[in-house]
Amino acid sequence: MQISEKSKQMELSPIRRFNEMARDAENRGIKIYRVNIGQPDIKTPECYMEAVRNYPDDVIAYMESGGTDDLREAVSDYYASFGDDFAPDEIMITSGGSEALSMVFTTILNEGDEVLVADPYYSNYSTFVLSAGGQIARIPTHAEEGYHFAYRERIEQAITPRTKAICCTSPGNPTGDVLTQDEMHMICEIAEEHDLWIVSDEVYREFVYDGGAVASFGREKEYLDRIIITDSISKRYSCCGGRIGILISKNRDVMNGAMKLAQGRLSVSTLDQAGAAALFRLPTSYYDEIRDEYEKRRDIVYSELTKIPGVVCVKPRGSFYVTVKLPVDDIEDFLVFLLTEFEDKKETVMFAPADGFYYDSERGKNKMRLAYVLEGEQMRRSVELIRLGLEAYEKKQAEN
Amino acid sequence: MQISEKSKQMELSPIRRFNEMARDAENRGIKIYRVNIGQPDIKTPECYMEAVRNYPDDVIAYMESGGTDDLREAVSDYYASFGDDFAPDEIMITSGGSEALSMVFTTILNEGDEVLVADPYYSNYSTFVLSAGGQIARIPTHAEEGYHFAYRERIEQAITPRTKAICCTSPGNPTGDVLTQDEMHMICEIAEEHDLWIVSDEVYREFVYDGGAVASFGREKEYLDRIIITDSISKRYSCCGGRIGILISKNRDVMNGAMKLAQGRLSVSTLDQAGAAALFRLPTSYYDEIRDEYEKRRDIVYSELTKIPGVVCVKPRGSFYVTVKLPVDDIEDFLVFLLTEFEDKKETVMFAPADGFYYDSERGKNKMRLAYVLEGEQMRRSVELIRLGLEAYEKKQAEN
Repeated sequence: MQISEKSKQMELSPIRRFNEMARDAENRGIKIYRVNIGQPDIKTPECYMEAVRNYPDDVIAYMESGGTDDLREAVSDYYASFGDDFAPDEIMITSGGSEALSMVFTTILNEGDEVLVADPYYSNYSTFVLSAGGQIARIPTHAEEGYHFAYRERIEQAITPRTKAICCTSPGNPTGDVLTQDEMHMICEIAEEHDLWIVSDEVYREFVYDGGAVASFGREKEYLDRIIITDSISKRYSCCGGRIGILISKNRDVMNGAMKLAQGRLSVSTLDQAGAAALFRLPTSYYDEIRDEYEKRRDIVYSELTKIPGVVCVKPRGSFYVTVKLPVDDIEDFLVFLLTEFEDKKETVMFAPADGFYYDSERGKNKMRLAYVLEGEQMRRSVELIRLGLEAYEKKQAEN
Repeated sequence: MQISEKSKQMELSPIRRFNEMARDAENRGIKIYRVNIGQPDIKTPECYMEAVRNYPDDVIAYMESGGTDDLREAVSDYYASFGDDFAPDEIMITSGGSEALSMVFTTILNEGDEVLVADPYYSNYSTFVLSAGGQIARIPTHAEEGYHFAYRERIEQAITPRTKAICCTSPGNPTGDVLTQDEMHMICEIAEEHDLWIVSDEVYREFVYDGGAVASFGREKEYLDRIIITDSISKRYSCCGGRIGILISKNRDVMNGAMKLAQGRLSVSTLDQAGAAALFRLPTSYYDEIRDEYEKRRDIVYSELTKIPGVVCVKPRGSFYVTVKLPVDDIEDFLVFLLTEFEDKKETVMFAPADGFYYDSERGKNKMRLAYVLEGEQMRRSVELIRLGLEAYEKKQAEN
C-alpha cells in the first residue's frame, strides 16, 4: 500500500518548520513580529459580517457552481468602476484565488507546457502548474533592478516552443514590482506574436504607490481573447479567511473549461459569497484609504531597511511585500537564529526566506521577503529587530 | 491558442440542459417538484448561524491549512460518540466532501491505477479519479437486487493488477444501498489480501432505516492503516452551502500527502468552520430526528412508486436516494417530455436520469434517481406526477 509518486514528489511547506520554532519561542515568553505571511492586521470591513449575519434563508443551500448572480454582478460593477468591462457571465466565483489559478492551469495546460513567470514568484504557482502537468519557466530578475522583468528582450529570450502562457502578478508577490499599462500592452504584443495565454493575477490591483495608476490586463481590449484574470477578496478587503476568488475571461472555451471543474466541486461557500458581494459594493474611497495605509507602512519599512549595512533593496512600488538581499550566506540559518537564539527586550521577528520563491533556490539564499501587514510602528520594530538580529548573527559568526 | 486536451475531454454536467428546460417551464407558470438533486429542504440547525453571527474576531483571517483545532476536536468527539476513535490530528478539514475526495485520489493514485466502485456510482468520483490520473473500474449491480454489491466473489472478480483502491459509499448515492458492519469487515479482508486502499465516503452515515445500525469502516480496527474516510456537513446537517468536508485516516503518509495539497490552497472558509464546529456538537437525538423524517419520506416514496406499472424498485435501506427502473427506453427523453410537454394542474416533476451514474450509460437508460429531499406530501405528489407523466408519455408514444 503506497501513496502516489506525485504526492511523494510534492513537499510540505518549509514554513511549517519555522512555525514550530516560532511556537517554541512564544512558549519561552518571546513576542514574535510575524511579517512572514500575507495576513494583514487590518479589520475586515464591517459590511462583510453584516451581510453574513443578515443572510435570509434558513437552509444554507448549494449555490450555482459558477457563483451567485448577486456576487458576479457586484464583481462586474467593481471592475466597471475602473473602466474594465466584464459581464457577470464572464466572471466565475471560486474557492479563493488559489482555486481560480488551479482551474486556469488545468484548463489551458497540456503535459509539458511551460508557463513563464518572473523569478522569484509566488510559490504556489508552481504547485498549480505542476498539478496540471505543466512546467514553470523563468524570466530572470535582479535585486538591483527592483526585480522588474518587463523588458521585451528578456521576456522573448525566455520563450521556447513549449511556452503556453505568461503569468503576471502586478503588483507583485514576493517583490512588490509593478507593471505599467504600457508594459502590459507590450506583454500582450509578445503574447500575440507567440500565441500565448496571459494569466494575470490581480489580487493587489489597487496597492500601487507614489501616485501610480491601477493598471489591468483587462483594459487591453484587442487582446482580451487570450487574457485570463484571477482575483480574490483576501488582500484588498483583508478577508483571507473568506474563501472567495474570481476567474475572469472573455474567452468562452476557458470559461466552459473552468465550469466543468466548478461543477465537480459543486459550489463555493454560500455565506462567504453573501459577504463578498457586500465588499465589492464598498465605495471607491475604501481603496484609497487602504492604499494610503500600506504606502505609509511601505515608507517606514523602506526607511528602516536602508539603515541595515549591506542590504540591497529598491523601494517597492506596489503590493505589501518587499524582497531584500541581506549580507548573509544562508537566509534560513539566519531565520533559525532569530527564532531560537536571538531576542531584544523579549522580542524577535519572523520573515519568509526567499529561497522558496526562486526557481533555483540558491538564488534566494541571501534574500528574505517581508510582508508589511502590521501597522507602522510594529513594522518599524520588525525591521529594527532584523537589523539587531543581523548584528548579533554577524558577531556570533565572527566568534566561531 | 488552445485549451488543454484534458479540459476538452471533460464534459459539462448534462443536468444543465434540463435546468434550462425547467426554467422555461417555470416561466410558463408550471410548478416543478425538484427531486433531482440532493439539496434537502430541512432547515440548517440554528446553531450554525448562531456560531457564525457570534464569530469574535474582526479580521476574517486564514485558518490553519488542515482546519481549526476547534472543528477538528468537534469532529473527533462526534466520531467518538459512535465508538469511532480518531484523534484531531487524524482529521483534516476540506472545502466540502468534494475536495476531500479529490485530495484522497491525488494522494493515492498513480497514472492508470484503478478504483473499484459499485456501478452505478456518484458521478463526481469519476471526475476526481480521472483528474488524479486514475481509472474507474466497476462492480456490477442489479436493480432487482436493490443494487447491493457486497458479495465477495463479485468484488474479487472485479479486481485486476491495476486495482489500487475500493471506494464505498454506504448508505449509497444514487441507490440507497447499505453495507452492514459484517460486510465492511469482509471488504477489509479482501482489501488486505489484495493490498488495496479503502476509501469510505460516509456522508450519509446516520441515514439508515428499518432499525439498521450506523456502520463505519472506522470501526475496523485491524485495517485502519489502509482506510480513508471522507465526510461532509452537507447532508447530515442540511448545510450543503457551508463548504466543510472532512478527510480522516490513521495513515500518516495519506495525511501528509493531503496536507501538501491543503497548503497549496491555503485554508478553508473561516466562518463555515466556526458554524460546522457547532453542528458537530449537536446532541445525538438530532440524528434520530433527521433519520426518522427521511425514513417517513422513504416509505411514502416507495409506496407511491409501487403504484407505477412496470417499475422495478427494491425498498432502499439508507441515504435519501432511490434508483428506479421505469418502463421507458430513453429516460432522458421521458424527462424532456415531463419538462416541456407534460403538466397536471400546472405542476410537473424533475428527477435525475440515471444514465449519468453508470460506467456504461446504456445501463442507466431506463432508470431514474429520485432524491427524497422534500417533505412527505410533496414527495407523494412528485411520484404521482411521475406516474401520471408516464401514462401521458406512453399514450403519446402509442399515438406516434
